This record gives sequence, C-alpha cells and structure tokens, in this order.
Amino acid sequence: MHARTLFRDGETLTVLDQTGLPHELRSCRLASLADAAHAIRSMQVRGAPLIGATAAGGVALALRVDASDEALAQAITTLASTRPTAVNLHWALDRMRARLAPLAPAERVSAAWAEFEAICEEDVATNAAIGQSLMPVFEALHAAHPERPLRVMTHCNAGWLATLGHGTALSPVYAAQRAGLPVDVWVSETRPRNQGLLTAWELREAAIPHRLIADNAAGLLLARGEVDLVVTGADRVAANGDTANKVGTYLKALAAKDNDVPFYIAAPGSTIDFDCPNGAAIPIEDRGGEEVRVIHGLAGAEPASLAIATPETDTANPAFDVTPARLITGIATERGLVPPTRLAGLFAEVRR
Amino acid sequence: MHARTLFRDGETLTVLDQTGLPHELRSCRLASLADAAHAIRSMQVRGAPLIGATAAGGVALALRVDASDEALAQAITTLASTRPTAVNLHWALDRMRARLAPLAPAERVSAAWAEFEAICEEDVATNAAIGQSLMPVFEALHAAHPERPLRVMTHCNAGWLATLGHGTALSPVYAAQRAGLPVDVWVSETRPRNQGLLTAWELREAAIPHRLIADNAAGLLLARGEVDLVVTGADRVAANGDTANKVGTYLKALAAKDNDVPFYIAAPGSTIDFDCPNGAAIPIEDRGGEEVRVIHGLAGAEPASLAIATPETDTANPAFDVTPARLITGIATERGLVPPTRLAGLFAEVRR
Repeated sequence: MHARTLFRDGETLTVLDQTGLPHELRSCRLASLADAAHAIRSMQVRGAPLIGATAAGGVALALRVDASDEALAQAITTLASTRPTAVNLHWALDRMRARLAPLAPAERVSAAWAEFEAICEEDVATNAAIGQSLMPVFEALHAAHPERPLRVMTHCNAGWLATLGHGTALSPVYAAQRAGLPVDVWVSETRPRNQGLLTAWELREAAIPHRLIADNAAGLLLARGEVDLVVTGADRVAANGDTANKVGTYLKALAAKDNDVPFYIAAPGSTIDFDCPNGAAIPIEDRGGEEVRVIHGLAGAEPASLAIATPETDTANPAFDVTPARLITGIATERGLVPPTRLAGLFAEVRR
Repeated sequence: MHARTLFRDGETLTVLDQTGLPHELRSCRLASLADAAHAIRSMQVRGAPLIGATAAGGVALALRVDASDEALAQAITTLASTRPTAVNLHWALDRMRARLAPLAPAERVSAAWAEFEAICEEDVATNAAIGQSLMPVFEALHAAHPERPLRVMTHCNAGWLATLGHGTALSPVYAAQRAGLPVDVWVSETRPRNQGLLTAWELREAAIPHRLIADNAAGLLLARGEVDLVVTGADRVAANGDTANKVGTYLKALAAKDNDVPFYIAAPGSTIDFDCPNGAAIPIEDRGGEEVRVIHGLAGAEPASLAIATPETDTANPAFDVTPARLITGIATERGLVPPTRLAGLFAEVRR
C-alpha cells in the first residue's frame, strides 16, 4: 500500500508535501487555515480531489480557532480563492457550508472533522469505482492485442498522489495490475511543473512499466500506433462534457482523435460543474511566469530550482486547457462510463 | 547585425557553440572531420540549414588531411551518419560529392572551401527570400487587426542560429520588424532540448516582443484566439508536403487547424526530399533518454545539467514528428509560398 496524501492527525492535518517529490518523500503538518490555504496554493497538495479534501480539512482547522458564522464564511472564502479551476474545491466547500452553517458554533468543530473524514472515505470508494468503470475498456483493448501490454498514455498526475485513494486516471491502471492485465504507461512530463515525474514515481513504486516522454512526443507516438488509449483526470467538467484539465491535455486529445485512438476522462462526480454550460465558461488559472522560467524539483541542485530563462523573459503560463467534448470518447465516473453527451443524464438528480 | 553561426577561419571553421546558449555566448573551433561530426551530433550546431553547411565545411576539413577518393567517400559517410532526419545534411554532402569527385585530389581542398562558401552565401539569400515570401501573409493578417501586433507562434528555433542568414521561420519576423510591422512572438519552450530559449534569446537581442510558454500551452492560446498564425522551420519535407520538424510541431498544427489559424512551414528547397514520397518514409531520430531525464542549459548550476528523473527511468525521445500536408496552409521557400500540393510543381526541374 502506498503512503497517504492527507490525513487527520489529532487536531491537525498531515499531508505528503508533493513539492519535494520525486526526490524527497516528506510530510508537512497543517495546523491552521493559513497552512491549508498555503498548501493548496503552493501545490504541496495538488490534484482536484485532493485539493477538495484539503479544503474541507482547512475548514475544520479554521473552526478550531473560531467557530462563529463569520469565521466559517471567512474560511470558505479564503480557501475558495486559492485556485480557480478545480471545481472540487468549491464542491467540498459548498458541502462543508451546507453541513456546518445550520449547526450551533459549539457543534461545528466535531462536525467539520466528521465531514472531512466522510469526504476522504468517499473519495477512496469513488476512485475504486472509476477504476472499475474503465476496466471493460482496458480488457477489450487488451483482448485485441493480447500478445503485448496495453499501452496507456496519461498526462499530469491523476494517481494516488492526486486523491485519497488509488487515483482517477491511474485507478484503472492499478486495477489492471491487480487483475493481471499487463499495462505499459506513457508518462508525459507535464511542463511547466513536471507532474509527470510524480506519475513516473508512483508507477515505479508500484512496479508498473512506464516510459517518461517530453510532452511534445505525444503526437508522434499516437501517429505511430504506439498508444492504445489515452486517459487523464480532470479539474472541471462542464455540463456539456467539455473538460478542463492540466494544460496540454487538449493537444493530446486532438492527436488521439486524429489517429482514432480513444480518449477518456476519469473524474468523480464532484468534478462535474453543471452550473457551467461549456468549456468557455470555465475559469483558467494563470500561474505566473516563474514556473516557465524555472525548472522545479531538481535533484542534487542548490537551490533546487534553477533558472532556464532570465527574470526579464516575458511569459504566459495558463495552467489548464479545455478539451471539447467532441474529442472525448467517454467520461468515467463513480457511476460508470458514459459518452460526454450522456453525462447530464447520469447525474440528473444532482443537477440544479 | 547578429553573430555568425559558422564561418571559415583560415584552415579551420569557427562555430557559435549553441550548447552554452542562452547563458553563455562562446565559440568553438573545428579543425578536423571528427570535430565537425561531433559538433553536429552534440548539437553545438543545430538547425537543418546550418547542419548542412557545417557538413560541407567538414568535408573541406577532412580533405586537408587526405584528399583521395577513399577519404572523400569516408568523410561523406561519417558526416551523413551524424543525424538522420534533417535532409539538408545529405543535400549538402551530395553537392560536395558531385563537385569534388570529378576533380583531381590536388584540386579538391580549394574547391571544397569554395563550395562551402557558396553554400553559406546561398543560404543567406535563401533565408531572405523565404522571409519575403511570407511577408504578404504577415501584411494581410496584420491589416485585419491593425490595432494590435501580429501574433506569431513558432516552435523550436528556426532563426539566425539555425542558418547562415536571418533564419527560416524567423526570417519573416525580422523582415516584418525592418518593415515596421509590429509582431509579438509566442515562443514554445521546445522540450526536451529547450531550443525555444534560443529563440527567446534571439528575439531579445533583436528587441522583438515575445513570450515564452510551455509547449503544453499552445493549444489553449490557439483556442483563445491569441495567435494569428503559426510558422515553423522543417528538417525534411516529403514530396507530398508532409513535413518532419522538431517534435511537437504536429501538435501545434493540429491545434491550429482545429481553430482555423493558418499554419506555415518555412524551409529552403534543400529541405525538400523529392525521393521521399510522404511523411511515413522520413526517418525519425531517437536521441536517447538522457535528454528527457536531464534539464540542459541551466544558469548558475554546477553541473549545468541536472537530473529531473533517475537514470533508471525508462524513456522515449523521438526528436521529430511529422505534420501531414493536410494541416499545412503553405510552405514558404526561396521560390515563393505555395500550398503543399503545389510544392512539386514549384521545384519541377530539380525533381529526379
């Protein structure tokens, strides 16, 4: 079993500090609202489901100091402002507000911790269900070429590091491994923050074959027929199935479509924003030029981040892009796998 | 005027060693065939036209030691094996062979230097003609939105660093600057070797506005309407217009097509391989995993290259990809700008 990304530790939270990975496995204690907000903003925790759970825990930390209506509202506002694109953040905060606002202040701390624990436990089950919903696809594609491993391409990190359980996009990969279905994973570096290195680290720890590639290589590999399917996570899925995910996902989806390779999104229902009609309405975070000018997470370097361009270099650094629903073969959720057009029906009762 | 990428210096060649850029501007003397082959293989010189000219100079260096038929053949074989994709290498070597083989050995050294000089001078003129052939496109697109700079996206480096003159893809950018047409260039980082940093450095030296982006960001910028045209160089254009260029070019071409943004290739006739019927026949260089595992060209780091992944990390590192002709709006050569389907006609008399 792998390490835990986030857990309650007495009256604090302990998180796996992902800014040290893949070179250093270190933990970090979050004792306050400010700590939780910083952990999300600085990407000590990242991945849409984990961001949501951390925000829920951040509410509990805030209420320990002050459980008034004002403090609850302020905590939610502070946490909601940390990152704009991943909707799980707002989903988790809405859920905390709905659960806690009706209670007397004295009851809120224990209820907040309980709700946090429930969100975490549900994410474990959701991850497993997402994996199962994609297993028939993995099995069918592997059956077409049983002589070789199933060649899966992913982008960014949507594994256990991004969640509380076995991940979203990587959940079927882990399920395949347990089922004895051989997989070989193309791991895209995912500049500028190199979260592909987190995926490579996860897969190495799990002894799952994988190859690290520059993001630019995805098109050639797809055109050469070296990829059986692409699966990524998501940060926000609009009502029509348009999907915001880590920048570069759209390029992979275009190349998959151009080469008739199926492209799947793996995401929990909490990532679907039915208030958002389509991709154009999804806010895209710009994380500033530092991430482009600097390479993070270097081993053996002091400092561990080094400049590849000068501070005067103008940049643009959108952290996400939008993959139109027309490029998505299916969206795998805890309720099953459906084409984007059937997403609304699958979650009909939760739509407003 | 900018520095020179390559010139004859007595009985040797001097090249701008591009492995130190953008942090260090240093030169390197090539005194032998082995030096020339190493300079091409290690990417001290890179860019299809510059590779071709360096190979021509390498033949002259080899003949200084031994001008026999065997030595000439051996020099050509050695240089031809340095890099597989850029066809200018073979074009230049074929030209040297055709010029030198009929001569007596005693006449070959001076003839080799003369042919090398001719190749260099022609490249300067070719670069200028390519720039002029794209100027009407730049002017027409700018005229549609005269209130803002023309927003050009490029990939890798196809500027003066890649040639003997003003570059291929960047030639019209420099021509626009001289003509007073304002441009703003999106510069793609171009992992794994980060040649986008060479482009950013060139443009900064020339005081041309530009913004550095992660390769992954190209799709979002195109989808948002922030790009007026894409123009890249090429390493080999097949007879049908399919074009091999730095890996990642195909992804940009797909995104340009998906958003109705014109996509141009800028390349000299020496980059067109009429013996190659289509993109599937173009050999694609694999440069090994080191470039993916390591970030090159870091400022202030000792060593200047640092690991982002362990040596055990499996990788794939194709250096080029193929953009199908159907995604290419036009190919700009020294003979003018034509759609890919009209390329063969433009060079009819040079086809075999």
